[in-house]
Amino acid sequence: MTDVHALQRAISEIFAPWVQRLNLRVLAAQPGEIELALPVGAEHVHAGGVMCGQTLMSAADTAMVLAIMTQLGEFKPMTTVQLQTSFLRPIAAGTDYAKVVARVLRRGRNLVFGEIEVSDATGKLAAHATTTYALL
Amino acid sequence: MTDVHALQRAISEIFAPWVQRLNLRVLAAQPGEIELALPVGAEHVHAGGVMCGQTLMSAADTAMVLAIMTQLGEFKPMTTVQLQTSFLRPIAAGTDYAKVVARVLRRGRNLVFGEIEVSDATGKLAAHATTTYALL
Amino acid sequence: MTDVHALQRAISEIFAPWVQRLNLRVLAAQPGEIELALPVGAEHVHAGGVMCGQTLMSAADTAMVLAIMTQLGEFKPMTTVQLQTSFLRPIAAGTDYAKVVARVLRRGRNLVFGEIEVSDATGKLAAHATTTYALL
Amino acid sequence: MTDVHALQRAISEIFAPWVQRLNLRVLAAQPGEIELALPVGAEHVHAGGVMCGQTLMSAADTAMVLAIMTQLGEFKPMTTVQLQTSFLRPIAAGTDYAKVVARVLRRGRNLVFGEIEVSDATGKLAAHATTTYALL
Repeated sequence: MTDVHALQRAISEIFAPWVQRLNLRVLAAQPGEIELALPVGAEHVHAGGVMCGQTLMSAADTAMVLAIMTQLGEFKPMTTVQLQTSFLRPIAAGTDYAKVVARVLRRGRNLVFGEIEVSDATGKLAAHATTTYALL
Repeated sequence: MTDVHALQRAISEIFAPWVQRLNLRVLAAQPGEIELALPVGAEHVHAGGVMCGQTLMSAADTAMVLAIMTQLGEFKPMTTVQLQTSFLRPIAAGTDYAKVVARVLRRGRNLVFGEIEVSDATGKLAAHATTTYALL
Repeated sequence: MTDVHALQRAISEIFAPWVQRLNLRVLAAQPGEIELALPVGAEHVHAGGVMCGQTLMSAADTAMVLAIMTQLGEFKPMTTVQLQTSFLRPIAAGTDYAKVVARVLRRGRNLVFGEIEVSDATGKLAAHATTTYALL
Repeated sequence: MTDVHALQRAISEIFAPWVQRLNLRVLAAQPGEIELALPVGAEHVHAGGVMCGQTLMSAADTAMVLAIMTQLGEFKPMTTVQLQTSFLRPIAAGTDYAKVVARVLRRGRNLVFGEIEVSDATGKLAAHATTTYALL
């Protein structure tokens, strides 16, 4: 399942309404990897004038589900076991889009390991996450 | 700063509008620890019928900022360095509230370490997070 | 399996010889929780005069395996899925023992979640780890 | 500081004697990145017949200190703030060497973020770690 439109549709079917407000846009997909645009909307900017960490973590988690779907060929029930995010650089309000790339590092029988990178408009790494999912 | 009303007000002043949609309610606070109610609203439930992990991580991060404020005595600029969340049990739709307790484990000169527990309505641990913040 | 002597014996049977050089000593055990003494030997102190982080992480991982055994009632094949350690305070050379407490937070069918605390001689938290294991 | 011999020497000067028993060998270095060989010695193999996780985490932490030195140009006092390791595949006893690559992802004023990959003899990812260091 690497069709950009099908993946875009999946976002509105699978995720919670609150997560859909991330307005993630699927840019590209290949088996085990997906690239998304994350708009830096005012709704996601905190008092310090930068995109909030909550948004970055949530985008990372969401992107990983989609990356796993590109690998599995379809959506299957799964659950996040753990997700660790490091915040390297702020993404300033006024930036149009951050870029989110999620990648399956290993798909085992029950567990899937992945990595997510969020980059700012200049391509610099803003957040880096690693995660484990359980296939149900 | 352990006044419940002041902390409640801070939520609407500091955090991004999207984060305010978590509708976190401050239940209790003491220096270095805060307890919040996290309503399990339909907006936060995904296709699997449980509260989404994005909400749990976001609530954890938000709660920790408030816990640090209770320790510092006021809001100071800070940034999340990293946050690791483990997801132990799902929180079913239909639950009224999850409870979020955030606790400062150590406040150093520049770094603050903390721990966050999210429990379901029966008091069982649903998510457990550890985190590092940098004071700016 | 909460017999202190049986658990002590298990350390020399299960773990790699290099890990046995931690000289962990079982102090107490109950179902789902174990307490160990970690001697602050010169072999584990780095040029900065404090116990090295490698030792703290290794002790945490080792302690968790034993904590899981106290819960399962026996040793079963298992593997660490992930382990995240935060280092809060140094443990100075010259300290006799650090104390390591590992606790099962949730035992699922395939996955076990746990938490490990390493405290210095005064009882202050030196390292805090969270971890996921897969039962094989 | 990217001289392989100087970095090799640093291993025996900086790290605890127990860590030196990892017998890490510096293969290559460039600013912000280092590549090491980690011998799969019998001392590091547990009852399950694979290299123990404690060794993998310890090698990751050690490698990162060296990677930071290649970036700073010298050894400066630093401390690990946190290190998260995911274990993707076992490394079987009988393997000669695992390969450890540590990379600085971002060097801030006080904090350094990094990533470490441990691969088995066939180049497959066995462990993946992310970490934060504080420069003192």
